Amino acid sequence: MGDIHEGHASLIRMAVAGSHAAAVSIFVNPTQFSGGEDFESYPRSRDEDLAVCEALGVSVAFVPTSEIMYPEPVNLFVDEDRFSNALCGPFRPGHFRGVLTVVAKLFNVVSPDSAYFGQKDAQQARLVKHMISALNYSIELHIGPTVREHDGLAISSRNRYLSPEERRRAVCLHDALNLAQELYRDGENAPGVITSRMRRQINEGGPPVTIEYIEAVDADTFDPVAAVKPQTLIALAVRVGNTRLIDNVMIE
Amino acid sequence: MGDIHEGHASLIRMAVAGSHAAAVSIFVNPTQFSGGEDFESYPRSRDEDLAVCEALGVSVAFVPTSEIMYPEPVNLFVDEDRFSNALCGPFRPGHFRGVLTVVAKLFNVVSPDSAYFGQKDAQQARLVKHMISALNYSIELHIGPTVREHDGLAISSRNRYLSPEERRRAVCLHDALNLAQELYRDGENAPGVITSRMRRQINEGGPPVTIEYIEAVDADTFDPVAAVKPQTLIALAVRVGNTRLIDNVMIE
Repeated sequence: MGDIHEGHASLIRMAVAGSHAAAVSIFVNPTQFSGGEDFESYPRSRDEDLAVCEALGVSVAFVPTSEIMYPEPVNLFVDEDRFSNALCGPFRPGHFRGVLTVVAKLFNVVSPDSAYFGQKDAQQARLVKHMISALNYSIELHIGPTVREHDGLAISSRNRYLSPEERRRAVCLHDALNLAQELYRDGENAPGVITSRMRRQINEGGPPVTIEYIEAVDADTFDPVAAVKPQTLIALAVRVGNTRLIDNVMIE
Repeated sequence: MGDIHEGHASLIRMAVAGSHAAAVSIFVNPTQFSGGEDFESYPRSRDEDLAVCEALGVSVAFVPTSEIMYPEPVNLFVDEDRFSNALCGPFRPGHFRGVLTVVAKLFNVVSPDSAYFGQKDAQQARLVKHMISALNYSIELHIGPTVREHDGLAISSRNRYLSPEERRRAVCLHDALNLAQELYRDGENAPGVITSRMRRQINEGGPPVTIEYIEAVDADTFDPVAAVKPQTLIALAVRVGNTRLIDNVMIE
């Protein structure tokens, strides 16, 4: 989606290092924004993005317009009915079908051997993995680790929506995930106990923070787990002011 | 779907003549059968099909099992919300999403430069054309003309379900399409008049025939036309006994 930040850059470095030619798509995809979301205000920085691509050794930047990607009204989608119902799904109607459809289009345009996605969008990555398998794409999927600011906030284009005060509060997602890992290391494995403690810690910080969800799911099936264990994904979405932030950690 | 007949063979000949290597998929796709349809009884003739492919100069026959095509529960589909709502759509819930999904899978497995479909399944061909465009497949679509028996019945695997008496009655689809063309040549262009006359002629033949639909639509948009003209598609579905038959003609 462009606005290339250090999270994207880490994926681009993986792609450049791992292939003969790396292609980057830069496209703020309208069909993955739900009604009322930030499509219009989403950061766009084409020239800076292209300079970063060049500096990182990218061979191809694919920077289509909406008219090129969607010359006609969009009435054909890749629709998924399992992983897309979990976590962010209920809060972002149509989001994942928009993501899968544009990724299928990009796969067909670019015909990559490998594709690189970030673990920060864990549900998106799981869905792309599922689509590759379900639609028989011959593409190897690589998931890059979440890149964080010095205080632990996961890097995201949407961080720039935050006021200075909101930016300070935004670290609550990372702090809550740290708490979950500490609790687990100390022997706690009841998902309800862990997520309640996370919830309480976030709420103790006061406004302007609203929790959308905090869940412990199996990293492969995305089903809620009965007990937290290795390969459990703890994921949360929190609104800080008007900005929706997500983060997750995999229990090791 | 296998059970290769002269309609399929004509497409295979086009593919062999038009390419360096022709691939044929033979797969009775369960996800495109609606509940209560003939998935179990659909004709299967793998060995004869492979012999025909070899005789016609096919380079690759892809003959997967259902377990290979669908190793997991199917919850990801290519879903279309325009052309699939017309004609056969309401009578075969889930059919076209099953078709589009398996065709996307076959496209991704085979990576063809060209694909060959028959005009007899005009709605399917239109949907595949739409998917190629909407998902940015680099595939040239070729539509082969409908191949007919000596009396005009469009060749179909389902014709073999017909009893001798039903087989004689089954020509009513072709006769009705001929009537439509005659009426048009004689100056009639009101869709309601033409389809009523077709309907009456079919019903005058008596049982065991039930009309599902007779429609005049634009061959590109699949919207009903206000006046029949060149590039109008006249299409119908008729049950002869328990066998559902379809046919169509493009007005020239």
